[in-house]
Amino acid sequence: MSVKGIKKIAIVGTGAIGGYYGCKLAKAGVDVHFLARSDYQYIQSHGLKVASAKGQDISVDPVNVYNDSKDMPQCDLILITLKTTSNDQLNELLKPLLHEKSLLCSLQNGYGLEHYLSQVFPQASIIGGLCFICSQKVKPGIIDHQDFGSIRLADYNAGAERLSDVAELFTQAEVPTQTSDSLTKARWEKLVWNVPFNGLSVVLNAKTDAMLNKDSTRALIKEIMLEVIQVARVHAADIDNDFADKLIELTDGMAAYYPSMKVDYDLKRPMELKDIYQATLNAAYEKGIAMPKTEMLLELLTFMDHS
Amino acid sequence: MSVKGIKKIAIVGTGAIGGYYGCKLAKAGVDVHFLARSDYQYIQSHGLKVASAKGQDISVDPVNVYNDSKDMPQCDLILITLKTTSNDQLNELLKPLLHEKSLLCSLQNGYGLEHYLSQVFPQASIIGGLCFICSQKVKPGIIDHQDFGSIRLADYNAGAERLSDVAELFTQAEVPTQTSDSLTKARWEKLVWNVPFNGLSVVLNAKTDAMLNKDSTRALIKEIMLEVIQVARVHAADIDNDFADKLIELTDGMAAYYPSMKVDYDLKRPMELKDIYQATLNAAYEKGIAMPKTEMLLELLTFMDHS
Repeated sequence: MSVKGIKKIAIVGTGAIGGYYGCKLAKAGVDVHFLARSDYQYIQSHGLKVASAKGQDISVDPVNVYNDSKDMPQCDLILITLKTTSNDQLNELLKPLLHEKSLLCSLQNGYGLEHYLSQVFPQASIIGGLCFICSQKVKPGIIDHQDFGSIRLADYNAGAERLSDVAELFTQAEVPTQTSDSLTKARWEKLVWNVPFNGLSVVLNAKTDAMLNKDSTRALIKEIMLEVIQVARVHAADIDNDFADKLIELTDGMAAYYPSMKVDYDLKRPMELKDIYQATLNAAYEKGIAMPKTEMLLELLTFMDHS
Repeated sequence: MSVKGIKKIAIVGTGAIGGYYGCKLAKAGVDVHFLARSDYQYIQSHGLKVASAKGQDISVDPVNVYNDSKDMPQCDLILITLKTTSNDQLNELLKPLLHEKSLLCSLQNGYGLEHYLSQVFPQASIIGGLCFICSQKVKPGIIDHQDFGSIRLADYNAGAERLSDVAELFTQAEVPTQTSDSLTKARWEKLVWNVPFNGLSVVLNAKTDAMLNKDSTRALIKEIMLEVIQVARVHAADIDNDFADKLIELTDGMAAYYPSMKVDYDLKRPMELKDIYQATLNAAYEKGIAMPKTEMLLELLTFMDHS
């Protein structure tokens, strides 16, 4: 299966996100190539599995899997699904995958990721992707899919037509897909959730439901969301304060969940503090706005970080 | 030993503070009566001990110890050394100890304690006391004295002469003692230390030195101190911002220390959130001042509290 010029797809980082969406695409018959450095051996022998609480189990075996991107083919679409803590390696990792018309799409969390990509790859066509999914890599090659799974795509500099091709590809792979007119707004909306839930889950050693079920932390979550929304607005992302309540209610309805930063912390991996927190704070400072509770959260997380 | 009318002294709560200062006074020959509810049996059989890292070991045996304040004599000076989480019991506990001229002195941490005492005991003469000490009750009847040990006294409504009598008593008991013209200022100065260090130590599971040795938490400690100082100033406590640096440097020079709230938390006791945090925040709200980081600290601690 392919859509227009998008025939070969690279998944750069086969974890909770890359593993899930890569399996969806592969299952739909797309020619997917996975970079999986630490899990390479296992995936080559046993394939890739999505174990889904939502009745969407997927097995892919054999898998086009690589432990070095130099061995991978050039690809038409490159989905960046590494932790942002490895973004300083992107130049080296992605170079072998790029041809003249390759599309880059970061499915990572954070602020300013597309800008960073455009600096590292000034010629590249870039779109942005936001994943709305609760998933976790529980073992090499095994992705535990707990809830949701949709994706929102928005253009950075690739043009509306190419954005729509990628959306069509995901849709054909049975991924609920939306496109957004504003990448900025889409990224900020995701940050409104990520900034409070990721960090507080680490600091309080708690899942989403426990934090929402106590008044003090429910209030704190909303206050941090409102700090993010305030900064989003001065960056031309038109988000109402009501959006905080909407996200909180959405999370009430979710299965109790450890956000990815908590999973990283428990596994003694470095946390994505730079791209989720420091970048957001810099966006605030740049406009002279204070985000005291977000700032304090980063101060606490920096103390706790293993890196 | 006695000073003017102060002959009998009650220690209400024989923990880290009551045990230490009570032993100092008893050793100096003052007639001290200890209320020790949970540790009564042990102290009656084995006495009270201060084990001091500063070469100031003290043993008191036998001890005038009671498990019910109804069995205690009326006292001239009543030192309140309970956790503030038990302050709702003060009316009942203190009644049997009071005569017409009894002096009440709270050695607790928090804001508004003397005001509370004056509401419960409208006739009482009240002074306030601030303890500068690192100590911990490690077992029933055993107080581990780690550092410092001075006391600062200030008048609430007892008059300068009675304040000076109490100061004289502590001085004779070899407790380094100062008096302050402003109880308000003395209490706020103590809060400048207590508000950041107590709560952050719980949230971060860390001693004072670990928090000061990382830039992010050293900055956070100072930011919270400055929030407290700002509120102190509108409450007529004239404290400079430089005081934050001074306290941080003082703490750099201290032995690594778990503040009392961390000890309480680890022992699954309720934390003194109401008197150290909520009272401070109320003092800020009352004047229309924001203390976002102090507020966030209380929100986190409320989530973690065992009570």
